[in-house]
Amino acid sequence: ATTFRASEHQHIRYNPLQDEWVLVSAHRMKRPWQGQVEHQPLTTVPRHDPHNPLCPGATRANGEVNPDYEGTFLFDNDFPALQPDAPSPGPSDHPLFQAEAAQGVCKVMCFHPWSDVTLPLMSVPEIRAVVDAWASVTEELGAQYPWVQIFENKGAMMGCSNPHPHCQVWASNFLPDVAQREERCQRAYQSQHGEPLLVEYGRQELLRKERLVLTSEHWLVLVPFWAVWPFQTLLLPRRHVRRLPELTPAERDDLSSIMKKLLTKYDNLFETSFPYSMGWHGAPTGSEAGANWDHWQLHAHYYPPLLRSATVRKFMVGYEMLAQAQRDLTPEQAAERLRALPEVHYRLGQK
Amino acid sequence: ATTFRASEHQHIRYNPLQDEWVLVSAHRMKRPWQGQVEHQPLTTVPRHDPHNPLCPGATRANGEVNPDYEGTFLFDNDFPALQPDAPSPGPSDHPLFQAEAAQGVCKVMCFHPWSDVTLPLMSVPEIRAVVDAWASVTEELGAQYPWVQIFENKGAMMGCSNPHPHCQVWASNFLPDVAQREERCQRAYQSQHGEPLLVEYGRQELLRKERLVLTSEHWLVLVPFWAVWPFQTLLLPRRHVRRLPELTPAERDDLSSIMKKLLTKYDNLFETSFPYSMGWHGAPTGSEAGANWDHWQLHAHYYPPLLRSATVRKFMVGYEMLAQAQRDLTPEQAAERLRALPEVHYRLGQK
Ligand SMILES: O=P(O)(O)O[C@H]1O[C@H](CO)[C@@H](O)[C@H](O)[C@H]1O
Ligand SMILES: O=P(O)(O)O[C@H]1O[C@H](CO)[C@@H](O)[C@H](O)[C@H]1O
Repeated sequence: ATTFRASEHQHIRYNPLQDEWVLVSAHRMKRPWQGQVEHQPLTTVPRHDPHNPLCPGATRANGEVNPDYEGTFLFDNDFPALQPDAPSPGPSDHPLFQAEAAQGVCKVMCFHPWSDVTLPLMSVPEIRAVVDAWASVTEELGAQYPWVQIFENKGAMMGCSNPHPHCQVWASNFLPDVAQREERCQRAYQSQHGEPLLVEYGRQELLRKERLVLTSEHWLVLVPFWAVWPFQTLLLPRRHVRRLPELTPAERDDLSSIMKKLLTKYDNLFETSFPYSMGWHGAPTGSEAGANWDHWQLHAHYYPPLLRSATVRKFMVGYEMLAQAQRDLTPEQAAERLRALPEVHYRLGQK
Repeated sequence: ATTFRASEHQHIRYNPLQDEWVLVSAHRMKRPWQGQVEHQPLTTVPRHDPHNPLCPGATRANGEVNPDYEGTFLFDNDFPALQPDAPSPGPSDHPLFQAEAAQGVCKVMCFHPWSDVTLPLMSVPEIRAVVDAWASVTEELGAQYPWVQIFENKGAMMGCSNPHPHCQVWASNFLPDVAQREERCQRAYQSQHGEPLLVEYGRQELLRKERLVLTSEHWLVLVPFWAVWPFQTLLLPRRHVRRLPELTPAERDDLSSIMKKLLTKYDNLFETSFPYSMGWHGAPTGSEAGANWDHWQLHAHYYPPLLRSATVRKFMVGYEMLAQAQRDLTPEQAAERLRALPEVHYRLGQK
């Protein structure tokens, strides 16, 4: 029988954090691509545009004027998907027709007063201000809501409608689907193995090394064994930390620096402002925050869509939507490529 | 307290077929769109292009020459994600690192010899030939494989790299993720309620009417209560049918006609060749085909990405990837819009 090689032979892998399988068919990278090519991102974004509602001093859709902010700036989303006072749909009359109340708030957080920077082009202290703002908003909204989802959509390819560097925060009175799945998986793992799933996972990856992208004193970045997106990564603290506000000042500085390195590598991969969606997951908050959530380990997911170049993405369609996620290079190959990239941004290096 | 109105007040809905929740925030349609606009699809596709590997008489990547086919044409995918003979990755050494063997085949099915038609522009007898070919390939590959996934990616926006009308068939030695979830949900429903989930669901939607798009003697098309994509639909037989090959000749004719009507409405919605991914789900096949699969009801899912116009799509990013699917109009609003559209294709109607 032929010897199995992950880069040659398709196989399926299990995601124990979200209870899902992915089909890995690395030999598919050999096929030619004749499909859709994306727009190149805008390269010249003006530093300040008084008509951009995210800029300092600009007027927003609701008529409010932004302050002349100099660091981060948090405000209410003018078109929120979640509002605090929505009434309940009432009891269901049939098990196949179940609806429930959804209450919450949606905020927008600008990372920087300038529109023409992105996180990897910001300084470590500027990124540290973002980390602190993430921790504060988790604390503030987490006082009331059981789930505070911080996420960044970067790039037009990821549905981001404004080039100004920013993220969003959606807090809800319910645990969203993915959070529920991670809660279930992490709880079951802890009760079966006596330790948090992602703490053991990080430890294993440090030993196995082949999927590591970056390590620092307090953090690691790796391409998970079960990654779905071509260059998907997972950012994990080395210590057992349940939520962002628990991070020490040293861990926050170190996080800012490893994020800058990761995002620089991402931009360097195809010499483009690398699009992605990213977000933080930590233990639930709200009125149950005091319960035992020790099975949770804080982490961030990065989901970038690009596959072959700055303009050729992975399409998660057809088979992926109807059957199962499928990837075209192995996580180990992706990690190797990311590891090899310089930590100096291609736009800053001297040529 | 305010009275709940689904079109005004965000809420969450449960998908009992796939055990998932969706956030419905219909008021979000009011926000202006300043984000990415898609390329308009090519309008002039040549009827025959000898360099297109899907055309009759063309030479494919592996050197084979296509026959001068006149109806449908099935052949092996030259870049298959699944191959019959891949070796197994062997036993796992850790519960967080689980991989398994994946074997299968990938086929491509051309619907028609011409590149410049799509299903809604084909005649009902021509579509009937496609339905028959779907049933045969399910039978043929289902003799060996437990899951035969038929799916169509239509349009460049859905990663389709060739405008020639075609679908794909991927058969595997495992039940893919979505199939597993539908298996689990349908089995549990049957054992709790004594009848197949989707048979009862279809009956309920016929009574409730507000989500129906089309009905015929043997079929119904509706926007499911838990739809995620703006104009997502579910195609269901009225009779309890487990798999495509079980369809009677009358049901196949009727299916061809209702598919033509649905896809015509889709094209008419934004006067464009409407992109989507669609696929069929039926009871598992293979060596266990003879077991009791009565909890399964055959169905097709249509997942179209467009939201506002021919060039503005829904982005399933950020919150959707990290937390939960979110939609911007209610399923009832989507059904109403689809119902109101003519059943004559905009390119065929006299103006
Ligand atoms: O095989 P195709 O049509 O070239 O490829 C398309 O469909 C596949 C199955 O859904 C996806 O994995 C690919 O990402 C997509 O581009
Ligand atoms: O609020 P934005 O950034 O305009 O909107 C973007 O992110 C949202 C949250 O992930 C998505 O629901 C939208 O489809 C997307 O376009």
